[in-house]
Amino acid sequence: MHVETLAWVGGRPGFVRLIEQTLLPREEREVEIRTVDEMVDAIYRLAVRGAPAIGVAAAYGLLLGLQDQEFEDGADFLGRARESAARLGSARPTAVNLFWALDRMVARAERDQAAGKTSDELLAGLFEEAKNIHSEDAHQCRRMGEVGADLLRDGMSLLTHCNAGALATGGMGTALAPMYVAHERGLSLKVFADETRPLLQGARLTTWELQRAGIDVTLICDNAAATAMQQGKIDAVFVGSDRIARNGDVCNKIGTYGVAVLARQHGIPFYVVAPLSTFDPDIRSGKDIPIEERSPEEVTLGFGTRTAPEGVSVWNPAFDVTPADMVAGIVTEVGLIERPNLARVEEALRKGGRLPEAPTGT
Amino acid sequence: MHVETLAWVGGRPGFVRLIEQTLLPREEREVEIRTVDEMVDAIYRLAVRGAPAIGVAAAYGLLLGLQDQEFEDGADFLGRARESAARLGSARPTAVNLFWALDRMVARAERDQAAGKTSDELLAGLFEEAKNIHSEDAHQCRRMGEVGADLLRDGMSLLTHCNAGALATGGMGTALAPMYVAHERGLSLKVFADETRPLLQGARLTTWELQRAGIDVTLICDNAAATAMQQGKIDAVFVGSDRIARNGDVCNKIGTYGVAVLARQHGIPFYVVAPLSTFDPDIRSGKDIPIEERSPEEVTLGFGTRTAPEGVSVWNPAFDVTPADMVAGIVTEVGLIERPNLARVEEALRKGGRLPEAPTGT
Repeated sequence: MHVETLAWVGGRPGFVRLIEQTLLPREEREVEIRTVDEMVDAIYRLAVRGAPAIGVAAAYGLLLGLQDQEFEDGADFLGRARESAARLGSARPTAVNLFWALDRMVARAERDQAAGKTSDELLAGLFEEAKNIHSEDAHQCRRMGEVGADLLRDGMSLLTHCNAGALATGGMGTALAPMYVAHERGLSLKVFADETRPLLQGARLTTWELQRAGIDVTLICDNAAATAMQQGKIDAVFVGSDRIARNGDVCNKIGTYGVAVLARQHGIPFYVVAPLSTFDPDIRSGKDIPIEERSPEEVTLGFGTRTAPEGVSVWNPAFDVTPADMVAGIVTEVGLIERPNLARVEEALRKGGRLPEAPTGT
Repeated sequence: MHVETLAWVGGRPGFVRLIEQTLLPREEREVEIRTVDEMVDAIYRLAVRGAPAIGVAAAYGLLLGLQDQEFEDGADFLGRARESAARLGSARPTAVNLFWALDRMVARAERDQAAGKTSDELLAGLFEEAKNIHSEDAHQCRRMGEVGADLLRDGMSLLTHCNAGALATGGMGTALAPMYVAHERGLSLKVFADETRPLLQGARLTTWELQRAGIDVTLICDNAAATAMQQGKIDAVFVGSDRIARNGDVCNKIGTYGVAVLARQHGIPFYVVAPLSTFDPDIRSGKDIPIEERSPEEVTLGFGTRTAPEGVSVWNPAFDVTPADMVAGIVTEVGLIERPNLARVEEALRKGGRLPEAPTGT
């Protein structure tokens, strides 16, 4: 029902087919990616984007560099796998999921090589690992969708920001997954999509994928969200996240924090949907999350037209941090973390195996 | 120091010179307006915009249609004045100031005609009236600037939304007037300008006029205002208004209400700057102000490039209403209305002659 952002086509050897997101919404085109260089380029120029989708793309990208090569032995295979991983990692050096997926792939090859497997067996192992990364992502998306859909009732009207949908994952998305599952369950929903300046992921991508799925979606300028809430048009907010601190503070696309403040003012629950892989247990609170500042041209020349005077100062933070106490709940693949705080986040992370079990006893 | 949006050039006959705002910020060009039709066109296509500036432009526009004509008598003059006023009024039928200025001009001609003046004397009277409308506007802007500047201290950092500056008035603006006066007084200020989607008046116009005046201005996406406040970058908010209800509820460009909510959340004072002519004593509260919804294309094709899928639903309200209890003060030409409410607004309106004096005594 939702779009499929990327897929491995064929067996071994095969190739990756992905939706060319830079052309959306003006043109719907799929491209075939057959080499590591093509995948590096696709990730770099945001043809594929969204943390989970980038992880899947990178894992498949590693296969592309290895599948039709000859290797002297396992050590040779491993060396070339590491080399390809380094090239893929350079495509977006700040993307956590990119490195997580590549590390997992290389670790698998290392384990298999240490176990004395042949080059062909090493490749088979990586093929399995990449497929697992993809299917686990899709499975997690569906689980989040089911957990989140339990929060929805027929006729509700939701607001989302940026694009945390199928286009951003190897499955049905994060923030949009509850909408897809609720739609499957026959619930009628109305979704308002913030256009999400400066890069307009809401306008370009969220409206496109929801429209294709037959979900009622209305585009608004970010500026209109407050008035939508004031007029009673919004029952709940669902957003994704790029990183969540151990105390539940949520880093996400710029504008998310403002939406959270507005939601609180109007008594509207603000939900975050993110897999446990988004949590960073090493970061105690949002204060420790560095906020990337991006190019002024995203604001002043965003659509090929100059919209501000030459030489004007621009402040263009790419992300913001919403304090945990403004979050009604974080929807994860292991369940809902209600009113998140340090203890509740740690409990969920333990449940999902991302933290060791707490010592028992007194 | 600030730009001059429009001016009457020469005596009688003369013409209007105005900044062609549709070309800003890419091109700085002034155009000469010599006929009623040219003025209707300039107002219609937003070459001149902003409620006070439109009023001045319309008053001058009426002169353009009368100054080089022959008239049989005063009645003939009056008939043609009314005809020109009707054409000018059709340029933006929802602009209150347009009709206010035209009504004032026609009323002057009616008074003078009733007093038996000649056509030439009637024209002289209208010339004086138009000049008065312009100079009163400029004077009110300066008074608001002085009242507002008294709220500012050296080193403060301000946020503004949309363009309520010199470009929108016949003087130094409304929301930006306190900044110009404070700058004259030698105060160092930092101004953040919301770009103000969908029409980007902040990006295109506010940054342009503040930059020209040598005031430190930084452009942000509307989405970044919340984070600017969270990081302590904003000391006060100054915005203009399109209409203010008798109870102090403020109608202004879409996004203003959201900024007010954010300001309250962060303990930042939210000021509105508007002349008494912006108040509508017949409107009891903001609930009674109709909100214009504008074309979807402003959102989906705003930059000349399609930024959302064909056929997507769009909700594009042009204005919003900020409740009076979120407003720290309204700066007017008769002083500051602190924490506005019905009684305080009525007091200011009486002071400015917009309401009759209250009955005295018990």
